[in-house]
Amino acid sequence: MTSPPIRHPVRIIGIDPGLRRTGWGVIETEGNRLVFIGCGSVEPPDGLPLASRLLAIHEGLATVLGDFRPAEAAVEQTFVNKDGVATLKLGQARGVAMLAPAMFGIAVAEYAPNQVKKTVVGAGHADKNQIAVMLKILLPKAEPKSPDAADALAIAITHAHHRQGAALRLKVADAW
Amino acid sequence: MTSPPIRHPVRIIGIDPGLRRTGWGVIETEGNRLVFIGCGSVEPPDGLPLASRLLAIHEGLATVLGDFRPAEAAVEQTFVNKDGVATLKLGQARGVAMLAPAMFGIAVAEYAPNQVKKTVVGAGHADKNQIAVMLKILLPKAEPKSPDAADALAIAITHAHHRQGAALRLKVADAW
Repeated sequence: MTSPPIRHPVRIIGIDPGLRRTGWGVIETEGNRLVFIGCGSVEPPDGLPLASRLLAIHEGLATVLGDFRPAEAAVEQTFVNKDGVATLKLGQARGVAMLAPAMFGIAVAEYAPNQVKKTVVGAGHADKNQIAVMLKILLPKAEPKSPDAADALAIAITHAHHRQGAALRLKVADAW
Repeated sequence: MTSPPIRHPVRIIGIDPGLRRTGWGVIETEGNRLVFIGCGSVEPPDGLPLASRLLAIHEGLATVLGDFRPAEAAVEQTFVNKDGVATLKLGQARGVAMLAPAMFGIAVAEYAPNQVKKTVVGAGHADKNQIAVMLKILLPKAEPKSPDAADALAIAITHAHHRQGAALRLKVADAW
């Protein structure tokens, strides 16, 4: 209501980084309307050395970025926990995941996991099931085949929401 | 003595990743001989958003790789500590630092910090000064302008050592 109408659809990619699986989800937003464009995940083959694994993630994301040409990107902030080795691994995947859109000249926004949950479900401690239900409502045509792809779509929705102010929040409220 | 002679010089890049400064050092090894080729560091301007910072590191390393065309690469294993935020930051820089040589088709070896110290100085708990002294002996022409560039050269030497077995160890022993 308070945000000015956006005349052209804006294409957004959400990325959920991980060394084993990096999810991606592309949507378009026009005003408070969201349209599903595509989603999937990049899964480097098991047993690759780290550098080759990072290269596979980079090449997978570069292909997606080249195919879908999003205008904006969003990545989830990696959860920092006490397991330093796990944090390091995620950091490495995240560095590569953020680099790919930057190489395409696309700005990369960052959102904390609870910000994503709060935007999509309305509560910072929502579980995977609640997110899946809301994804079905917000993007009926999306059928993510992996949790990473679903998370990536949720991140893209979060960015659509935060870039356009209150409009999406109204739609989420309507949907309940 | 026991390792077979290597007929052609092999060019090696060592990389010391960091979000604020990523050091690099290029050497050539032929048998037990080490030759300094170049060193420096990539320093993204202060205040850049994370994705732009990662892009600056990537572009800096890609320029170095394109200019020097090393055949092999080595990266220090990031020290994992209890500070999850610091570990995550280093992980992000490290992911991008390992990706760059991989994009050039170069295999990337990894060495733990104490492995580097042990190889260059002979002790796993050597300090920066001892490493600097040994760098002067092993690579007299090198004048690294930052600790990161010096560390990167030490990593390259470590790889030269481990790829050719006992040869360098003999030379280090001679130097003392």
